[in-house]
Amino acid sequence: MPRLSFWFEFASTYSYLSALRIEALAAEAGVAVDWHPFLLGPIFRAQGWSTSPFNLYPAKGRYMVRDIERIATARGLAFRLPDPFPQNGLAAARLATVGVRDGWVTAFARAVYTAEFADGRDISDETVLAELLHGLGIDPAAAFAAAATTPIRDALRSTTATAESLGIFGAPSFVTAGGELYWGDDRLEAALACALSEPP
Amino acid sequence: MPRLSFWFEFASTYSYLSALRIEALAAEAGVAVDWHPFLLGPIFRAQGWSTSPFNLYPAKGRYMVRDIERIATARGLAFRLPDPFPQNGLAAARLATVGVRDGWVTAFARAVYTAEFADGRDISDETVLAELLHGLGIDPAAAFAAAATTPIRDALRSTTATAESLGIFGAPSFVTAGGELYWGDDRLEAALACALSEPP
Repeated sequence: MPRLSFWFEFASTYSYLSALRIEALAAEAGVAVDWHPFLLGPIFRAQGWSTSPFNLYPAKGRYMVRDIERIATARGLAFRLPDPFPQNGLAAARLATVGVRDGWVTAFARAVYTAEFADGRDISDETVLAELLHGLGIDPAAAFAAAATTPIRDALRSTTATAESLGIFGAPSFVTAGGELYWGDDRLEAALACALSEPP
Repeated sequence: MPRLSFWFEFASTYSYLSALRIEALAAEAGVAVDWHPFLLGPIFRAQGWSTSPFNLYPAKGRYMVRDIERIATARGLAFRLPDPFPQNGLAAARLATVGVRDGWVTAFARAVYTAEFADGRDISDETVLAELLHGLGIDPAAAFAAAATTPIRDALRSTTATAESLGIFGAPSFVTAGGELYWGDDRLEAALACALSEPP
């Protein structure tokens, strides 16, 4: 089965849109998805940005909110911009890295995105994250303990470095087995078509 | 007939994609298009950018080229990044402003975009622009004379100020009669659908 890598950052509004639809679209297309939580912060800082471009460039930020409101409405999704924006997604990204290792990254990532962008909850709050883990039948204490270990912290750092080396500069991004990079929820369909068209 | 405003900048690669397809898509949808040449330079400078973001952020620039190559291939269009990039589109934008007044902006804009992004010509070169005008049956001397007048220069400045006041921060952008802003060639279909859905 062709595979597509899905690169996401928990603070990213457009990653929310993709996280909630990629599994259904990929299943329909016959493509397997590899979920890669990474951090945009180091990549943004390397290009001189101290925060989200949607904060640095207010007209772009206002447009993003309206763009996502329209898309969310068309898809029957709730959307609200969290306060503060962007959220600090480090704790969630470390937990999701445990989830990659232990097989629950998809369910966890979707739960985090829904809490953040539909329910307006603070995803840097460990009690919120513990509640989400618990709701998925994952032991929060064990997950937090694993997330604090050096191998998991290093794995997240390494994933972020890999993202940068693949040319990733924003989220969501999609990379095919053949190395084609697609950026943005609006490129998901094209990324899936490309993955299907590549030789095995 | 519903109307859609099309805001374009001659240096913009994604505006090329829209300029070559908007009339066919709009005609099929039953929407009339108003072409608005404007300058991104002043808007970029106001947010601290001295050149195209595709030059300021090289990973984004490399991605843009590949993204457009893929889209152009799918649409049977040629594409090459002009050298230098971005091109200086001021002379072309002043001429296009004459074209708005005199009814030939659509044909002229398409000719400029094709010369720039398909044929790799320098659109800041007056001999190139004269040749394009001549090919469309427009008297180059008269067009250049009109483009140099204060009313036309002021009209372009005023159009750029209007773009900024509409919340436009990039090109191509589309604005419906109801004030909904869409940014990017990939939002053209949604912009047309929105224009059709608005009350007359």
